[in-house]
Amino acid sequence: MNRHDPSRVIRAARGSQITAKSWQTEAALRMLMNNLDAEVAEHPQDLVVYGGIGRAARNWQSYDKIVEVLTRLNDDETLLVQSGKPVGVFQTHANAPRVLIANSNLVPHWANWEHFNELDKQGLMMYGQMTAGSWIYIGSQGIVQGTYETFVSIAKAHFNGDAKGKWVLTGGLGGMGGAQPLAATMAGFSMLAVEVDESRIDFRLKSAYLDKKATSLADALQLLEHAKHTGKPVSVGLLGNAADIFSQLLEQNVIPDVVTDQTSAHDPLNGYLPQGWSMEQAAQRRLEDEKAVVTAAKQSMAVQVKAMLGLQQRGAATVDYGNNIRQMAFEVGVENAFDFPGFVPAYIRPLFCQGIGPFRWAVLSGDPEDIYKTDAKVKELIPDNAHLHNWLDMAKERIQFQGLPARICWVGLGERQKLGLAFNEMVRSGELSAPIVIGRDHLDSGSVASPNRETESMLDGSDAVSDWPLLNALLNTASGATWVSLHHGGGVGMGFSQHSGMVIVCDGTEDAAQRIARVLHNDPATGVMRHADAGYELAIECARKHKLDLPMLA
Amino acid sequence: MNRHDPSRVIRAARGSQITAKSWQTEAALRMLMNNLDAEVAEHPQDLVVYGGIGRAARNWQSYDKIVEVLTRLNDDETLLVQSGKPVGVFQTHANAPRVLIANSNLVPHWANWEHFNELDKQGLMMYGQMTAGSWIYIGSQGIVQGTYETFVSIAKAHFNGDAKGKWVLTGGLGGMGGAQPLAATMAGFSMLAVEVDESRIDFRLKSAYLDKKATSLADALQLLEHAKHTGKPVSVGLLGNAADIFSQLLEQNVIPDVVTDQTSAHDPLNGYLPQGWSMEQAAQRRLEDEKAVVTAAKQSMAVQVKAMLGLQQRGAATVDYGNNIRQMAFEVGVENAFDFPGFVPAYIRPLFCQGIGPFRWAVLSGDPEDIYKTDAKVKELIPDNAHLHNWLDMAKERIQFQGLPARICWVGLGERQKLGLAFNEMVRSGELSAPIVIGRDHLDSGSVASPNRETESMLDGSDAVSDWPLLNALLNTASGATWVSLHHGGGVGMGFSQHSGMVIVCDGTEDAAQRIARVLHNDPATGVMRHADAGYELAIECARKHKLDLPMLA
Ligand SMILES: NC(=O)c1ccc[n+]([C@@H]2O[C@H](COP(=O)([O-])OP(=O)(O)OC[C@H]3O[C@@H](n4cnc5c(N)ncnc54)[C@H](O)[C@@H]3O)[C@@H](O)[C@H]2O)c1
Ligand SMILES: NC(=O)c1ccc[n+]([C@@H]2O[C@H](COP(=O)([O-])OP(=O)(O)OC[C@H]3O[C@@H](n4cnc5c(N)ncnc54)[C@H](O)[C@@H]3O)[C@@H](O)[C@H]2O)c1
Repeated sequence: MNRHDPSRVIRAARGSQITAKSWQTEAALRMLMNNLDAEVAEHPQDLVVYGGIGRAARNWQSYDKIVEVLTRLNDDETLLVQSGKPVGVFQTHANAPRVLIANSNLVPHWANWEHFNELDKQGLMMYGQMTAGSWIYIGSQGIVQGTYETFVSIAKAHFNGDAKGKWVLTGGLGGMGGAQPLAATMAGFSMLAVEVDESRIDFRLKSAYLDKKATSLADALQLLEHAKHTGKPVSVGLLGNAADIFSQLLEQNVIPDVVTDQTSAHDPLNGYLPQGWSMEQAAQRRLEDEKAVVTAAKQSMAVQVKAMLGLQQRGAATVDYGNNIRQMAFEVGVENAFDFPGFVPAYIRPLFCQGIGPFRWAVLSGDPEDIYKTDAKVKELIPDNAHLHNWLDMAKERIQFQGLPARICWVGLGERQKLGLAFNEMVRSGELSAPIVIGRDHLDSGSVASPNRETESMLDGSDAVSDWPLLNALLNTASGATWVSLHHGGGVGMGFSQHSGMVIVCDGTEDAAQRIARVLHNDPATGVMRHADAGYELAIECARKHKLDLPMLA
Repeated sequence: MNRHDPSRVIRAARGSQITAKSWQTEAALRMLMNNLDAEVAEHPQDLVVYGGIGRAARNWQSYDKIVEVLTRLNDDETLLVQSGKPVGVFQTHANAPRVLIANSNLVPHWANWEHFNELDKQGLMMYGQMTAGSWIYIGSQGIVQGTYETFVSIAKAHFNGDAKGKWVLTGGLGGMGGAQPLAATMAGFSMLAVEVDESRIDFRLKSAYLDKKATSLADALQLLEHAKHTGKPVSVGLLGNAADIFSQLLEQNVIPDVVTDQTSAHDPLNGYLPQGWSMEQAAQRRLEDEKAVVTAAKQSMAVQVKAMLGLQQRGAATVDYGNNIRQMAFEVGVENAFDFPGFVPAYIRPLFCQGIGPFRWAVLSGDPEDIYKTDAKVKELIPDNAHLHNWLDMAKERIQFQGLPARICWVGLGERQKLGLAFNEMVRSGELSAPIVIGRDHLDSGSVASPNRETESMLDGSDAVSDWPLLNALLNTASGATWVSLHHGGGVGMGFSQHSGMVIVCDGTEDAAQRIARVLHNDPATGVMRHADAGYELAIECARKHKLDLPMLA
């Protein structure tokens, strides 16, 4: 099995010439490649896109074969991908998906990292995270708005909507975590981000997601203090271990206004550096003694979580940002680890009740102008949402594109369908220079069961019921999404989540318009349905407003 | 929540008049009702079809609403069913399934009976078993051929293909287990079946699946002895606890030729009566102290498994028949519980490698003549399979229909599609008096991951990888099956399996023919693909023969 190939430089084709047989398959091809663009992926030569070891394909043989198949696939055929490996091509029909993907799924009794890692090493599996293995990751920008929305909600909940002079402490500047400093300053917060890998800090400086690199904790605190005086928020990266620095701040009684974390705690073997270890040491120990690494990582996480709990007690608004660090600490004895809430029940659930989630699109032309035109279209079609307009303005100004130009916008049921149809029309009319794809994160309203994150503390206690994301995937398949995926273990790691993804191509045809109308309605509608079924009034209202046909609610 | 309603008497409509808007939805309606026909279901008034607490709908409110929705559903709409509850109706298209079902699915970390039972009690879930919640159970006959094929394989493997004078010891005469005595005598074996519920014994006597009821163990052994002398196999039911009787036989050094079990061991709370308990006592204790029941049941299972191991050591061919009894015993300390094999790796896997599995169909007319005509068609189209012809003759002669007349036939890739298209043509031409449905068990070649049963001891160690059944469900949805289901915990219980089902309607139209051609090819083809991917030569050969497009094998 060939997983590391330093000679590989992947970049999606641009423009309106295609090598696949249609835009449906060309879109899959470009988005797969875009996931592995050096501007986009964390470790493209290992096929790692983001989120610990979240991959786009199982190995390079599989990658090459997927490319080959997508290039020859007809528009009434469907490719099956099993944990990043192309396993079969079948006759379907024009309104069926072109690719169906199942990544990292394990029968529950065996659904843990140990068993996964064994299979992974034997070449039998791959970790798909959420959008890595389902080919709709669009770089750190994909997470910027979600993080920004969360920080705005935190400011509303704790600081009367005004983040001025406040600062956030966090850990991790990886694929997703790297969006934190930009999202924080956009929302008016300063930020101190602790990261063990200096190259990650430098990468975020280069893309202007991060403002400064501190030379020491004292230096960092001074930069924050300065920002407080000038009133201009600053984001500061600090090389160090989060478990160490979080504890030092507690000891020194320096209390941040907000505390969170985005190390890859969900994957204790690969995602979290134990205290006192160097990166090289960790790399070596991973080969020698996996159990020891996992134990050491969890123990350091326990230290960090204890510091987070301590800071919370002294007044910091502390929140788990969806990396399962509470569970890991809990497993090694931190009994009150769940005393600070997850971000979804705390800040995001009301959005999910209305089918609002991380809607995103990418322009296959590669031309930034195409994105700016869609930005303008969004403003035109959703004229009275100042918050959204503000977001679009900031995004245009401050977010550098990585790979194919893309945009993310949290919009809900009704709006998604409207935007999708308008974009398709813009492709048809030639206003856009090539087709575009529309997708979303698996972290969305109707597409995930994850009791420590997206479905934490559901009103009716149905946190762990995963019928919902499975139905979401089946319905997106039945509605004609271009590719559909079913994953396990994204965000919070093996055993803790099941979720589904979908992408749909706007190629400007009338057939596509029909599929778009169905998919972009049905997909968020399943989220409203799921939350209405759990008893959320906001979701029940939304279902009524949109005349959803929910038999047991009628 | 209303789960018990003694006033309910459900029976599917017969004939060619329909109350739904088309045969697609009428078929779902009739098959749902047929699952709850008193001739078919174990406890229809509790909505329990078979396999412990395997239900067709969550409660009577849900049942009524499903019936209502199916009656009004259009042929470009799709109903979503979440653990037996109808939760949404969505716009799809003519080639999409009419019903999409997800039953009993739980995020792995919470995927155990304790958590399930809690949710179940709160009315948030339902156990779907395999064909109970997916509306294609056809009574004990559904399992007769599978069991018959297994016994024939056992005779081949251990007794030179001749079962004469040999006998099988087993436990359980429930929905599935009740097929054992008939399958055994069909295969030439005598059988002793131990069952704690006398009504189950009487039920099997009435349907002629079982020949005799013994008054004591001594009486039973005498009946078996007599059969040995006359050379005519006999099946004997004995009221008793399997843990007791199996142990007594070992003590008395009476060694059966074959030993297995089909109590509902997969569900220690509801499916297995502990030693020394009466049925009433168990029912009471289940309400008072679930943990105590589970513990007592597992301890009795340990006793039974130890007896099975002892009998194996003294020469009996001992096999786990897919109820997870080894796992349960293992969990309470029987370390060598897995010393006897499961029936799939031992006898069934070669069939799965060729996409051969429990293909079945039911005639919606209700007319037995329609089945006999299809029987004849099978013989005509598969002329050179004497074993299959023999099975069809015996089935016609010895299997009483329960509910809508149905037939099961283990056939493989190629044959399934051929039969489906022929049946559709027979509907079109009027040779059959109404449409028919074609489906299968979830226990099939490409539709299940179940490491203690269907995917035990896979060649490459991929037993627990559940990407495969998920892909199977997605592909059947994309191919246009009439209904598709995704379940968890069937056969072996919560945490131990994931599997998918499909049913397709032959209404005689050309559109249906196209869907049938796709679905009945693709569905078994995913099984061949899965086994070829695992390295089975027989599957690789089969894939080549049928020109499957498996990119990494080419
Ligand atoms: N809330 C959300 O919306 C959301 C979305 C996606 C992912 N996530 C989760 O966030 C986490 C981070 O995702 P990612 O894509 O950034 O992962 P990543 O693996 O790309 O980045 C993790 C970073 O943490 C750093 N790190 C590891 N141990 C550390 C330590 N002890 N101290 C300081 N830094 C340390 C690593 O060097 C790396 O840069 C994951 O668990 C992921 O599942 C959350
Ligand atoms: N191998 C296969 O193909 C296959 C197929 C389907 C089901 N199964 C499994 O077989 C098992 C039985 O299925 P079913 O539908 O017959 O279930 P069921 O619940 O209808 O029947 C189980 C029977 O076992 C009896 N029983 C319980 N405890 C007993 C004891 N201690 N001694 C003797 N009898 C006892 C019950 O009274 C009941 O009649 C299940 O675990 C099911 O998952 C196997």
